[in-house]
Amino acid sequence: MTYCLAIKVNEGLVFASDSRTHAGVDYANVYSKVHRFRLHDDRLIVLLGAGSLATTQAVVNQLEQDLMDPGACQNLNAARTLFDAASYLGAVSVREQGRHWEAMQRSGFSAEATFILGGQIRGQAQEAYLIYPQGNCITAPPLTPFLQIGESKYGKPILSRIIEPSTPLEDAARCALVSLDSTMKSNISVGLPVDLLLYRRDSLIIEQTLNLDLASPYYAEFQQRWSSGIRAAFDHLPRFEWEC
Amino acid sequence: MTYCLAIKVNEGLVFASDSRTHAGVDYANVYSKVHRFRLHDDRLIVLLGAGSLATTQAVVNQLEQDLMDPGACQNLNAARTLFDAASYLGAVSVREQGRHWEAMQRSGFSAEATFILGGQIRGQAQEAYLIYPQGNCITAPPLTPFLQIGESKYGKPILSRIIEPSTPLEDAARCALVSLDSTMKSNISVGLPVDLLLYRRDSLIIEQTLNLDLASPYYAEFQQRWSSGIRAAFDHLPRFEWEC
Repeated sequence: MTYCLAIKVNEGLVFASDSRTHAGVDYANVYSKVHRFRLHDDRLIVLLGAGSLATTQAVVNQLEQDLMDPGACQNLNAARTLFDAASYLGAVSVREQGRHWEAMQRSGFSAEATFILGGQIRGQAQEAYLIYPQGNCITAPPLTPFLQIGESKYGKPILSRIIEPSTPLEDAARCALVSLDSTMKSNISVGLPVDLLLYRRDSLIIEQTLNLDLASPYYAEFQQRWSSGIRAAFDHLPRFEWEC
Repeated sequence: MTYCLAIKVNEGLVFASDSRTHAGVDYANVYSKVHRFRLHDDRLIVLLGAGSLATTQAVVNQLEQDLMDPGACQNLNAARTLFDAASYLGAVSVREQGRHWEAMQRSGFSAEATFILGGQIRGQAQEAYLIYPQGNCITAPPLTPFLQIGESKYGKPILSRIIEPSTPLEDAARCALVSLDSTMKSNISVGLPVDLLLYRRDSLIIEQTLNLDLASPYYAEFQQRWSSGIRAAFDHLPRFEWEC
């Protein structure tokens, strides 16, 4: 399993992901699920992938190849909008899944993959899309501007409580970390290290990149403070009337 | 959907449940999912049910009928242990699911139901069991002594962080409320009012019963304090180095 999310606040975008992959309980590995592409300097696009690792890698490879192929009918540099880029990604994903679909089904596996594609093209609004395995896509909801793929339930409550369009970019990044931390505590198939990217709107460059694991002093302090903060919040809940 | 949980701490047991039922997005209703039985005074048993409402109701009815039927080969009063009671419930559940299985499958529905059965028989340890749709059962893990059925993921992180065997009974009840509150915020098919029962070990009676909804002053204060507590914990998280 995997857990990736993107948050879109007024100040910019946050991309976050765990990095554990596995085949059943076997062959557990660390792969980054965050993909960046060398694109023209009028655009910045970040991709997060969840689902079949073979499919996500095949899709990333095809996107890279299309960028180098002058004859490609579409690529990330040629996309006029981020919606165009998301639709193109969806089409590539459906094609890649289709190539192995029958063989995968015969073996009882799924070739499905889900993606988040986000970024900005100069002169246009920043945006993030969730691309379904079927190739169609949605943007983040305006009032709760985040998208999640993979093992998304454990980490959703904190996002729902904190994230709104006016949330500062660094707060959104911390909220993504809490969301990932809660998920990793509940599902062993989501694991460290965590990749965290901060994009400030209209900059067209990734401003900050963090790769955090248990050896990171920041992450250790983060976990300790969150645990004690939750405990304090809990201890401050109202007593039942029979306790007074 | 439904979300029910039981917590087993040294001081006693907590049972908690939402009360929303629905057929697809339709026919949303309020049903208590907590069932208590009039039993001999040497025992107290509480049942929580999730899944097909028809199955859970049929199972509860069968358990009630067996209690009144002198010829029944098993019932909750005759169970020698809570494990016996859980196994008996599992057998009734499998039988009830089987009665409508084919018709349900033809219509694309599931007759499955999952239960939590907990309580105590005099002279024995208190216990809680999760009974799978297949009729087999497990107890709560000793170090993380809680069981969840239904929509369990949203509300798990807070339980993992707070609950341990030495948690006071009222704290366990508050933690169950936070867990339900987080779930209701994320999944509209889990809804108020909330049923909360506290059982103090060796008492063989339910000590406190709460039915909470938005009109309950306690619940309103609870939600407000939890929100502000989470916000305070969040605001106290360490800054990133570039913010200092």
